[in-house]
Amino acid sequence: MAEEAAVRAQAETVRRLKQDKADPDEIAKEVAKLLEMKAELGADEGKHKFVLKTPKGTRDFGPKEMAIRERAFRAIISCFKRHGAEVIDTPVFELKETLTGKYGEDSKLIYDLKDQGGELLSLRYDLTVPFARYLAMNKITNIKRYHIAKVYRRDNPAMTRGRYREFYQCDFDIAGQFDPMIPDAECLKIVHEILSDLQLGDFVIKVNDRRILDGMFAVCGVPDSKFRTICSSVDKLDKIPWEEVRSEMVGEKGLSPEAADRIGEYVQLHGGLDLIERLLQDPKLSQNKLAKEGLGDMKLLFEYLTLFGITGKISFDLSLARGLDYYTGVIFEAVLLQQDHEHGEEALSVGSVAGGGRYDGLVGMFDPKGRKVPCVGVSIGIERIFSILEQRLEAAEEKIRTTETQVLVASAQKKLLEERLKLVSELWDAGIKAEILYKKNPKLLNQLQYCEDTGIPLVAIVGEQELKDGMVKLRIVATREEVNVRRESLVEEIRIRTSQC
Amino acid sequence: MAEEAAVRAQAETVRRLKQDKADPDEIAKEVAKLLEMKAELGADEGKHKFVLKTPKGTRDFGPKEMAIRERAFRAIISCFKRHGAEVIDTPVFELKETLTGKYGEDSKLIYDLKDQGGELLSLRYDLTVPFARYLAMNKITNIKRYHIAKVYRRDNPAMTRGRYREFYQCDFDIAGQFDPMIPDAECLKIVHEILSDLQLGDFVIKVNDRRILDGMFAVCGVPDSKFRTICSSVDKLDKIPWEEVRSEMVGEKGLSPEAADRIGEYVQLHGGLDLIERLLQDPKLSQNKLAKEGLGDMKLLFEYLTLFGITGKISFDLSLARGLDYYTGVIFEAVLLQQDHEHGEEALSVGSVAGGGRYDGLVGMFDPKGRKVPCVGVSIGIERIFSILEQRLEAAEEKIRTTETQVLVASAQKKLLEERLKLVSELWDAGIKAEILYKKNPKLLNQLQYCEDTGIPLVAIVGEQELKDGMVKLRIVATREEVNVRRESLVEEIRIRTSQC
Repeated sequence: MAEEAAVRAQAETVRRLKQDKADPDEIAKEVAKLLEMKAELGADEGKHKFVLKTPKGTRDFGPKEMAIRERAFRAIISCFKRHGAEVIDTPVFELKETLTGKYGEDSKLIYDLKDQGGELLSLRYDLTVPFARYLAMNKITNIKRYHIAKVYRRDNPAMTRGRYREFYQCDFDIAGQFDPMIPDAECLKIVHEILSDLQLGDFVIKVNDRRILDGMFAVCGVPDSKFRTICSSVDKLDKIPWEEVRSEMVGEKGLSPEAADRIGEYVQLHGGLDLIERLLQDPKLSQNKLAKEGLGDMKLLFEYLTLFGITGKISFDLSLARGLDYYTGVIFEAVLLQQDHEHGEEALSVGSVAGGGRYDGLVGMFDPKGRKVPCVGVSIGIERIFSILEQRLEAAEEKIRTTETQVLVASAQKKLLEERLKLVSELWDAGIKAEILYKKNPKLLNQLQYCEDTGIPLVAIVGEQELKDGMVKLRIVATREEVNVRRESLVEEIRIRTSQC
Repeated sequence: MAEEAAVRAQAETVRRLKQDKADPDEIAKEVAKLLEMKAELGADEGKHKFVLKTPKGTRDFGPKEMAIRERAFRAIISCFKRHGAEVIDTPVFELKETLTGKYGEDSKLIYDLKDQGGELLSLRYDLTVPFARYLAMNKITNIKRYHIAKVYRRDNPAMTRGRYREFYQCDFDIAGQFDPMIPDAECLKIVHEILSDLQLGDFVIKVNDRRILDGMFAVCGVPDSKFRTICSSVDKLDKIPWEEVRSEMVGEKGLSPEAADRIGEYVQLHGGLDLIERLLQDPKLSQNKLAKEGLGDMKLLFEYLTLFGITGKISFDLSLARGLDYYTGVIFEAVLLQQDHEHGEEALSVGSVAGGGRYDGLVGMFDPKGRKVPCVGVSIGIERIFSILEQRLEAAEEKIRTTETQVLVASAQKKLLEERLKLVSELWDAGIKAEILYKKNPKLLNQLQYCEDTGIPLVAIVGEQELKDGMVKLRIVATREEVNVRRESLVEEIRIRTSQC
């Protein structure tokens, strides 16, 4: 059978990659392909073999991962709230045409739902387009909101580096007609606060402006029709060296070598206010209306960032382009830096953890009359942050509690299930976080062990004598100390002893 | 053109329904159909008309709805945590075959993703099957977890009654081999706590057991092969009267009239411990092994519920069947009661807000060796609860704040943008929730109005004189009182004055 031969060939591919110690992501990709082929083969033959897994590029979050995830979310949400944001939510899928024509080349990565009669639907690709749809649909012209939710991209997953097909985005956006660069500056302040708060190590926030890029392309002699595609090439500069980008521009995209070389000079520039001032004096750039506007606003932005005291982490970087089509002004991207101790020298960029920019035209694409609502926003790339936090916790061997239980209601003798049920019920009703073991007659040792394993700090032990005396024995797990507490004071005693938790 | 004629016919249908003042859900359904037909027609003709809407059966949550939603979630999560639950999350889609054969007749409501190459995927239909898949995949035999997430059903939406195609479920489940009915009793305690805490009005939790139902069917003379389908008929008793259910059993499902009548006698019974005792003496039921087991456990359950002090809201109800295939033991459903003052007499049931039961076989369906992990759990039907909370807040005309901002940094004179930026940045860095208006020179009146509109309690006003003196004027919005505060004491002053917020 042809399919069986194909499976054998694929198995051979996997074997060879493993033997060659190839890139683990590459191997994982081929293994996934092999498993899919096998599953399909099994289904075809009727001797079906069920594969117990989550879909490609997705993962479950167990209690430990969730504890880490919630810690990161808490930091991010508290920052968004500190800046006065409201919160909204939109459906996980949109009408297919809502997403059409918004993502340029990336549109091929959109998940479509099967046509089961009725509307054609797609899973959301980001939170920005649904936000713009929401604004246009509800005729909202003024809002500051955050939205934390999963988005979907049929990309090649690289899960070890935190790249998934289902992943969270944490978006903060400001919509409305305001004085220039004030909301834009706040977005950068927010990125700065969140990355500092999460203590992910040193970082830099690269800033540029689509208008400066377009002006630069114009003065370098790029034809108007090639702006977007040359912009895509520039966007690759954080991953591949200039020489390769140049040959893509000239070879694949038909740009003249002279224009490419002129771009090459500009995109190597990065700096601060001094660079902005220099470019404002640049004989070519300063003649271009768009570039001049962009540079003027960039200067204003840096003034505001100086007032916020965060310019130390900001780099005006002419190589920053951002992939998406909808940006119209300021764009930015935050990357974590890793000091490369082996090779000394320069800080090494380990990847983008936040990005955003201004998109003044997107809402107008949805409005029947094309009315524009200017927007600027930032998206925190939480998956990569999770990966870092997970690795760090693993390295530190820190034990993470996955419950908040304050007390286990236990018994020292048999036949006390009813008394345990009565007491734990009293505690629940008083708002105490409490558990019992679901056994009729658990051993005391097992009950104490459960507390050790799960980090429960207190044990309330009921015994026959205590019941007669109206007392409960309270054991502090960490110190093994035991105190007798009157039953009517138990709730208060537990509260006091766990108040620092 | 045939399609245009179809659209015109549909438009006529809508017109007629509106004229007849038909059920709003019905009208909404036909309008949606009309819009879809029009959209398709537009697309076909090339003169495309984009429809600005969310997909059928879904909705956006704006800031106000989110504030209500988060209030409800807080109550539910705090209850789940009080009972020592961990939290997990799973992907929004599963391999199609993971969901296959778990939902009986409801399987037709599953959303499939388009085959874009690779795996065949479906959106999750509930959180229970993904949970069972998670347990089997990770070989977990013992966990108490909650999971709050959206699920998807291609059902006929009835949005005014809180029935959507995308909706939240809040699930709490206990997996593991334990002594009988202890975890089952805790699930009921949790439903009782949550419904009491949310103050949704009077409610009753109906309880039954699949084993009692099956035993009852056996002694009534239902052939084994008809158990599931007769069970589906019984499940309709909360919506249609016995006479209709009976004629479905006899007419459509070919049950003998005598068997149906015997069932009719049982399913009218509901009560408490007394009824359990009576049925344990029932000459027919007590001879059936399954029924006897179920009744014995039901008695034990009631003993535990008595210790929890919640039997007042529990009704052992032989008509409760629950639709899903996977239940194996105790089943339950909580319904809100509405006193029907017009017609006096009995409390009227207004719909199910929570349900659940024991499913001891589901995990084994995923385990390659069929190893079983007994489970019991509850799912809170949060959408209906939202609807009730929304209606109540609307009726009470209560104003809900959608942000937590403590202070607006304002200025009384022009040219103080820089000073406002500096001060608001200081406040953010100190953890104060603060905003500014994004205007260079906003009017003081507009700034104060913004606080009134959004409920911000304090205004920190910078003025030239205050700047010279190292002071800030703090205005309390509610009382219009103004106090001068030293700049270095401002953070502390704001904290004290908003500590009750």
